[in-house]
Amino acid sequence: MTFQEIILYLQKYWIKMGCIIIQPVDIQVGAATSHPMTCLNAISDQSIAIAYTQPSRRPTDGRYSKSKNRLQHYYQFQVVIKPAPFDIQEIYLRSLDMLGIDLKNNDIRFVEDNWENETLGASGVGWEIWLNGMEITQFTYFQKVCGIPCDKIVVELTYGLERISMHIQNVENVFDLVWANSKFGKVKYGDIFYRNEIEQSEYNFQHSDINFLLESFKNHQKQSISLLDQDKGLPIPSYEHLLKSIHYFNILDARNVFSVNERQMYISKIYNLIKKIAKIYLNSKK
Amino acid sequence: MTFQEIILYLQKYWIKMGCIIIQPVDIQVGAATSHPMTCLNAISDQSIAIAYTQPSRRPTDGRYSKSKNRLQHYYQFQVVIKPAPFDIQEIYLRSLDMLGIDLKNNDIRFVEDNWENETLGASGVGWEIWLNGMEITQFTYFQKVCGIPCDKIVVELTYGLERISMHIQNVENVFDLVWANSKFGKVKYGDIFYRNEIEQSEYNFQHSDINFLLESFKNHQKQSISLLDQDKGLPIPSYEHLLKSIHYFNILDARNVFSVNERQMYISKIYNLIKKIAKIYLNSKK
Repeated sequence: MTFQEIILYLQKYWIKMGCIIIQPVDIQVGAATSHPMTCLNAISDQSIAIAYTQPSRRPTDGRYSKSKNRLQHYYQFQVVIKPAPFDIQEIYLRSLDMLGIDLKNNDIRFVEDNWENETLGASGVGWEIWLNGMEITQFTYFQKVCGIPCDKIVVELTYGLERISMHIQNVENVFDLVWANSKFGKVKYGDIFYRNEIEQSEYNFQHSDINFLLESFKNHQKQSISLLDQDKGLPIPSYEHLLKSIHYFNILDARNVFSVNERQMYISKIYNLIKKIAKIYLNSKK
Repeated sequence: MTFQEIILYLQKYWIKMGCIIIQPVDIQVGAATSHPMTCLNAISDQSIAIAYTQPSRRPTDGRYSKSKNRLQHYYQFQVVIKPAPFDIQEIYLRSLDMLGIDLKNNDIRFVEDNWENETLGASGVGWEIWLNGMEITQFTYFQKVCGIPCDKIVVELTYGLERISMHIQNVENVFDLVWANSKFGKVKYGDIFYRNEIEQSEYNFQHSDINFLLESFKNHQKQSISLLDQDKGLPIPSYEHLLKSIHYFNILDARNVFSVNERQMYISKIYNLIKKIAKIYLNSKK
């Protein structure tokens, strides 16, 4: 099963389970949780059942293409259902079975894990799901998102697509994954991303301009705050500026420029802002 | 057929035609052509056959959710094949047939159109494809991309997903399109995007901060240029900064801040830079 087929099969499976497929957000984010359809909707009283593929950028995880399984850009397959079905664990396991993962002859464990994403003000209880010792999915019942407690039970499943594919295709190196077969032959993951990982690692760790990053963080925060003014009241564009500021924070973090205290101060700024955005989003419906 | 199904059927069809499905770029762009897999690869000598869905942001097209068919954020389904199959027109028409569009009882026209995207330094010959008087696809043989002539024949097909869906679902208003049926009931296009279109239109036309936009354009251009220095040589991160500068240009254009001459000067800056990026991308393989 190719990488492309794994995404298509997951889509098909979750459609059968009553989810709609949406498109990823077109802003650089560290996690699928940041998608406005997850982050801003988790706390509303509306029911949702969505699934999507999200490119995730984590500058600190770059390894110049020299690691077999660490990337600064990878793909998450995200499922969010509210209210959560009571048999969601069972439904999840059947998705692995559908992908051809033998549930009896592999060691699949639900390892308790209290998940937290500080910048998104999100936390929850759940499990890391381990397949033969490798984490392949994060399974979380949200307790708080954007710093606001969730009234309804929201479940988030985040599949690490590369890791699951490496197991299914039985390859040791992520760049050897077969993405798909085109009319011009086999296309590997490395054909698409090998060079990108090198250049982005060099950018993130060495050549990004720290003053530019610091200024950009500050400016996007300022824009985000200003769009929440009563006469404007634009939480969605405000949220997008916030996401951009978080991306700059993540690169600055990769550049290792923060002291422990400074880092915490930046996280607090983000947290306080996202909380304000979410409140205004919930209270002002255009 | 729901909006979601139309995307899935197009994916399935183009897989059969030998394309691989890739994911959209996670940066705000005005057209699917901006995806690095299209823009930077079109001029290389490598064969490609790709298809993807790309969110497209065109600030000037926002209408505060008051128009039935104009949006500042919509979806393109993009197909790029190099070298182009000789029977690509026929293959395209069969894709419409597969979507259930009756080729005999509808008025389908190939209207000659010399396409140009100034900021991407791209131009070509081809057709707008009209379905009962509405443009549903742009069909282009690239002659130049990033200001560089294409050696091989590259074909780009860009489906306007909303317009095709409006025909298939026979609805007058884009917000009435059925996106998909979830376990919690029917989800319409408007459920997802109605509020977003209002807020983004207010942002683009009224509340975006012009000084911030001008500064951001300048800063991203500067970063982009600096990453091309010989000691750095990072065309991919440079290209991403360029895309961001183009997005700020597009919002400034919606704010109507440019004189005719200034506008042309900005376009020249973008064009000269993309040409430089593409040359370095082609010549320096990491």
